[in-house]
Amino acid sequence: MKRFLRKSDYSRQVKKLTVKTIMQRSLIKEGDKVLIAVSGGKDSSVLAWALSQIRSELKINYELAGLHISTDFCACCKRAELCSKLLEWGIPFTDLFVPVIGRLKEGEKMNCYWCSTQRRTELLKYAVEKGYNKIALGHHLDDIVETFFMNICSKGELLAMPVLLKYRKYPVTLIRPLALLEEKQIIACAAENKILKNACTCPYGQNSNRREMKSKISDFIGFDSGDTKRRILKALSEGKIDYLADC
Amino acid sequence: MKRFLRKSDYSRQVKKLTVKTIMQRSLIKEGDKVLIAVSGGKDSSVLAWALSQIRSELKINYELAGLHISTDFCACCKRAELCSKLLEWGIPFTDLFVPVIGRLKEGEKMNCYWCSTQRRTELLKYAVEKGYNKIALGHHLDDIVETFFMNICSKGELLAMPVLLKYRKYPVTLIRPLALLEEKQIIACAAENKILKNACTCPYGQNSNRREMKSKISDFIGFDSGDTKRRILKALSEGKIDYLADC
Repeated sequence: MKRFLRKSDYSRQVKKLTVKTIMQRSLIKEGDKVLIAVSGGKDSSVLAWALSQIRSELKINYELAGLHISTDFCACCKRAELCSKLLEWGIPFTDLFVPVIGRLKEGEKMNCYWCSTQRRTELLKYAVEKGYNKIALGHHLDDIVETFFMNICSKGELLAMPVLLKYRKYPVTLIRPLALLEEKQIIACAAENKILKNACTCPYGQNSNRREMKSKISDFIGFDSGDTKRRILKALSEGKIDYLADC
Repeated sequence: MKRFLRKSDYSRQVKKLTVKTIMQRSLIKEGDKVLIAVSGGKDSSVLAWALSQIRSELKINYELAGLHISTDFCACCKRAELCSKLLEWGIPFTDLFVPVIGRLKEGEKMNCYWCSTQRRTELLKYAVEKGYNKIALGHHLDDIVETFFMNICSKGELLAMPVLLKYRKYPVTLIRPLALLEEKQIIACAAENKILKNACTCPYGQNSNRREMKSKISDFIGFDSGDTKRRILKALSEGKIDYLADC
């Protein structure tokens, strides 16, 4: 795994693994209109950068656009900086305001589930209205593995983040082109390309369950364990359940 | 979880959770002829004991028999003691000799996979020949969780030990009635009932991968984590794969 730690080629690695994921899973096809959900954080910014840089490798014509969702409890995001970065990469930028707190009914408290549902709904609505057929999210390999372990241990459910999810109700497909990339590779690539790495810190606090799971997983499969994480992703993606359930 | 640690009721717990598993999954039905694979170790011995003790709770008529497989590399098993315990519980005992090493072709080396395949084949053959329709194995919750984690991390496969497995090729079904029980509960029950707890130590060495995985899982989900392990079993048993594979 030493090759990932050399200083010169993080960008190359990110591009290579993004291309591999897109090709293997047919995430982007000729003529696709891809809306990237950009939070201003490192993951979605690196995703936007990568999708703009791999056109020649993919040999596919596709349209890119970035959508940022602003809320009524977070005004600190460096939107101007994000907008200028995206334009630099040839990606038009739109900011959409969603009053997440304003939509709470009387007596209801703000929580992560409410916020993410509101954002996801608006993202989908926007994509459908503007004719985007793909929504690209910046989740990476560590996000996927953590979500899987959290769900199986806490909820007793086999549930993760699919690399490709076709909605039945909407003419839109979610894609996660960074699925083969570890977080540390994304961080290094962001630094190499002077990509923003600080998203707004949510005033409602970080998800402490996820933070705890992150550290447990790191102990469990080891920090330098990209291969193990990729094997887990392979298992999840194949979804074969022979000899698992009663049969 | 303190209740599992009281000294008086390990036997009651083992019986209760074995009955629960059998009822929930319909592992044993009226008229079944159940062959228990007894190694002489604590797990299969506790299984034999439990199956002989829960007839009145189950209110089902079923036949029990124990089969031990002896090999050409292990003569130290306390077969006489095992036989007398089983007879004490009303279970007839048979010993079957399988020349595991003798069947190796020239140049082939002995390994765990070869040995277990030979044993499993003979077990199945014996059951079919003698008209047993169920084979009961002593695998417990820790075995199932460890196998799952080993397969997903090392092989990249969603593969565990099903609680019930109906063979397509043979008129036999494998069942694992101890699936809800943790190893520590079985150890305590064995001690309480003076059940043998030492199987032969295999001269070809313990499976060090499994030992390592055992310790990692214990750190990962915590030692006193029966509930988490049972949630994992629930997830595996339901086998729902929505939002897991590409969809």
